[in-house]
Parts: sequence; structure tokens; C-alpha cells
Amino acid sequence: MKLATLRTGATTRAVRLDGESGGGGEPGGTGGTGGTGGVLVDLGLPDVGAVLRQDGWREFAAAATGTAYPLAGADFAPVVPAPSKVVCVGLNYRNHIQEMGRDLPEHPTLFAKFADCLIGAGDDIVRPEETGQFDWEAELAVVVGRTVRRARGAEAAAAIAGFTVLNDITCRDWQFRTREWLQGKAWDSSTPVGPYLVTPDELPGGVRPVLDIRLAVDGEVMQSDSTGDLLFDPVALVEYVSTMVRLNPGDLIATGTPGGVGQAREPQRFLLGGETVVTEIAGIGRLANRVVRETSAR
Amino acid sequence: MKLATLRTGATTRAVRLDGESGGGGEPGGTGGTGGTGGVLVDLGLPDVGAVLRQDGWREFAAAATGTAYPLAGADFAPVVPAPSKVVCVGLNYRNHIQEMGRDLPEHPTLFAKFADCLIGAGDDIVRPEETGQFDWEAELAVVVGRTVRRARGAEAAAAIAGFTVLNDITCRDWQFRTREWLQGKAWDSSTPVGPYLVTPDELPGGVRPVLDIRLAVDGEVMQSDSTGDLLFDPVALVEYVSTMVRLNPGDLIATGTPGGVGQAREPQRFLLGGETVVTEIAGIGRLANRVVRETSAR
Repeated sequence: MKLATLRTGATTRAVRLDGESGGGGEPGGTGGTGGTGGVLVDLGLPDVGAVLRQDGWREFAAAATGTAYPLAGADFAPVVPAPSKVVCVGLNYRNHIQEMGRDLPEHPTLFAKFADCLIGAGDDIVRPEETGQFDWEAELAVVVGRTVRRARGAEAAAAIAGFTVLNDITCRDWQFRTREWLQGKAWDSSTPVGPYLVTPDELPGGVRPVLDIRLAVDGEVMQSDSTGDLLFDPVALVEYVSTMVRLNPGDLIATGTPGGVGQAREPQRFLLGGETVVTEIAGIGRLANRVVRETSAR
Repeated sequence: MKLATLRTGATTRAVRLDGESGGGGEPGGTGGTGGTGGVLVDLGLPDVGAVLRQDGWREFAAAATGTAYPLAGADFAPVVPAPSKVVCVGLNYRNHIQEMGRDLPEHPTLFAKFADCLIGAGDDIVRPEETGQFDWEAELAVVVGRTVRRARGAEAAAAIAGFTVLNDITCRDWQFRTREWLQGKAWDSSTPVGPYLVTPDELPGGVRPVLDIRLAVDGEVMQSDSTGDLLFDPVALVEYVSTMVRLNPGDLIATGTPGGVGQAREPQRFLLGGETVVTEIAGIGRLANRVVRETSAR
């Protein structure tokens, strides 16, 4: 099952994708996020966060029979527009850690974003004029489906509603101004997430999905790896984060990025404005975002 | 004007304190957070966050004439129970930076907490069994009163609704497990904040208040400084944070802690459970929290 949050005029609607997605796995795409097949069925609630707060949300979402919107031209909001927390993981791909010559860490490195950082799968990424090092990070994101604290094993696995795609856009110069990364990571309206929450039953590997993840800038592939390479897998991350703090329905855990970010390239490459960044995970979905320069900045 | 969020049975109410607070500036207090004078007047809204989202909230809050609850025995919720963001500042007291032999930083160090970390001014602080280094940090916190982005000067000052008291309780062992502090800082139900939002017009120094801040454990003073010693003052912090991300009504900025934390003491001192921690800022308010061991932990 694939769920999304659709913009319809001034409001949003939770929808279920019936039929072909057109939103995942087409590396040759032209930048749009909606395909031409399939329809988006209204679930009677404003967004996927509200769906996940329903008891028995899977059965509820599978059974709903509301208005069907065309997939073509769909305008996706962040798949969960207002999660109570967005927890992000630092270095977490074995290949990337090893190619950087580092030891495998004993614990995941965690930082946060705010709900106000999130944008939709086809939205423009606003490049602040205050940064000179605007970079990308393709990530698999966990969407939490129930409230848990100190979840272990099967309980942690069952807390995973599904997965989505996130581009952890980063201002590197601000990230390294101080020893804490937050100020490089939490810029307003900078982080695309979506378009779909895909339930684990649809994915090879289930709650530990093994899927091709890649990111391209203007068609040039910058990152390409498998989500099976994660050092701390989604279940382990739910266990770890929920040790610290409760996880609520709709909360997001961005699981880290593979090698190939702009800062680590020779020579370095950063986003200047005007590019289209496509972030995709096979079987989950595809973000396609133009980078635009901020016009409201002083 | 002093505002608070009061628990009344299963719900909460926004209130205005009329008369004596009994909640600020009594170093000899016995651990309660309510005094015996004054009343708490119902503002007709569920919490201070809802008040701050009203246009003209100052006039609205000043004019309200609802039910009056006795201050004695008041049970305070977090002053804003569900802020859209809690931004915290690292090392920010000049004396403390200099006593540590460090250079004054050029930029504030920022990290985040989640709304689920917050507890009320008299609530028990839950000590997780997973930590062996449970520490305190007395802080002045800014409460934001309007939505701003890239606010400068007078606009940043006007975005400050008022100030409150926050104890940035920290698991030091988890803080330093990785290079990011979040996992030491964002434990569930660990961070008391309140009891009052106090508007700047009531404070010496206004939006850059100069007030005694102190923290005591079982009556022994551990931290004592002046909020006038802040390197990045409240207005500068609103400017800096709002450069990165919009600030919304009810958002909190915890401005950092002075010297005297448990980890920096000789010998080190940590909270084991059973202590009462009193955090107070003269003229703003007083947190008094018992530290209790978690019983639900596995």
C-alpha cells in the first residue's frame, strides 16, 4: 500500500495510490513527480499523519473509497506535513564509512530537523543566500506508525508504518560553523520528503528493505548504493531512538546517506540554483526538486 | 504580565497570574512551585501556546476575566506544552567559557529538544536507567510570540513574548557517545520548563534581562550567575535562529547554562534519584523537581 498527502487548493488530503505509481524508479524521468497511470483515492482525512493516528490504520486506509484524484499533475505535500519529531542519522552506510577510512561506530549519530524544514516531493528547494555550500543527501526515511518507547525486536518492527524518500539538504558551511550540525541541517523549507509512504509488505527485505537508492543532479548520478548497506537498520534505529524518547505516529527517522555528497567530491560540487535534483529509491518513490535562489532574503 | 498553563483534571488551561506569584525568587523554598498569594485567571484557551497564536495576545491576555483558580497547590504544565521547536544553545555564559579556557565563539552552538521532552515546573524528572551521568543545566528560555524569519533588531526584539525558566537536563554519557549532543539532551519527560512566561516589560533589561539565575540540588547551590553574562543575548539568538528557520508563537529558545554543572565539578556530581533540584531566575520563576528513578524501564 502506498499513501501520500495531496495538496488540493488551500488544504491537503490523505490519499491511497491505486494502480501504477509513476513516482518511483524511473531514472530517466524529466523532473515531475506524478506519472500518468493510477489514481489517488481520498481517505477522508487531511494528511497521512492523521491516518497513522487512527487505530487499525492499515485496514482503514485499505478500505477507504473516497474521491479519486488523477495522479497526473498531483501536487504532493510532505508525506507527513507536521511530524512531532524528525530524527536524522549521521554516517550510516558501511561502504561510505569505510571509504572515508573511519571505524564503524558503536552508536548511531543523531540530530534533528523541524517540521518547518519539510517540503513536498516536487516542491522547489529554496537555496538560502547565506550559504555557499548547499549540498544533497539521499536518504531512506522510516515513518513511524504507533506510539512506542523502548521498543525492542518485533515491537520495534511493528512500529514501522513504512518508508519514504528524503533529501537531507545541508548547508555545509553552517553545519561546521560549530561542533553541532543542527544549524546546517534545519533550514526552512529545504528538505523534500515523499511522495509516498510505502508499507513494508511491498518491499524486498520488509522492515529492513534492500533497495537501490540514488541521487542525480541534472541527470548526473551523484549517489548510488543499496539501503541494505545500512549499518544501523530501520528496526535498530527505532529501538535506539525510542530508548531516548517516545516515537509517535507520523514521526520520521532519516536513516543517513551513502557516499557521493557534493562536499566529499573531487572537486567539490554544491548546488547554486537552477539545478534539478532527483532522489529515488526503487519501489518507494522519487523526489524531483528544482533548486531556486531565495528571493525574500534580505 | 505572567502567564502559565495550568493542569485542571485531564485538560489544561491558559491562565494569567494576578497578585503575588510565590513562584519566583525564593531561594529558601521548600520545593513547591505554587505560593499562597495570588490567583490564576482563566484566559479561555487551553494553553499559553494558543494564547500566543492570537492576534493581539497581550491585550487579549491582559483583559481576560475567566474563572480564578487558587495559586496554592497549582499544578503547572510546561508553559508551552507543544512548541513547534525547542532550540537550545550550547556554551553561552562568558564567565563559564573563559573559566574553561576557551575562546569566545563567533557563532552560537545550536541543538534541539522535542516537545515530548518537556515537563511542568513541579513535575518529577524521570531519571532513565540507561544513564550513569544525569546532570543539570539552569537556563533562561525565550518564548517566541510571533512568526518571524530573518528578524533583525526591533523586529527580533518584538518577537520575544517573554521569558521562562528551563532546566536542560542532560545524560552526559549519551551526550558524548557520538559527536552530536542530541541523544544526551532529548530524553522523554526530562526537561522542566515554566512555571511562567513573564513579559519583558516586567524585567530589568527588558528583552535582554539582567537577572540572577541559580540552581540548587537539595539546597546546595550548584550554579549562580547573571543572565546579563550571556554572550549571545536573547535578541541576537532570535536573529540567528530565525535566519535558519521560521520561529512560531510558542517556540522556545533555551539560551545556555552558566558554570557549575555536575560534570565540570571536582569531584563530578550527578543526579542519582531522590534529589530535589530547584532552578530559579529572580523575577521570572522557579522550578522545583524531584528526581525519580524510572520504574517502567525494562
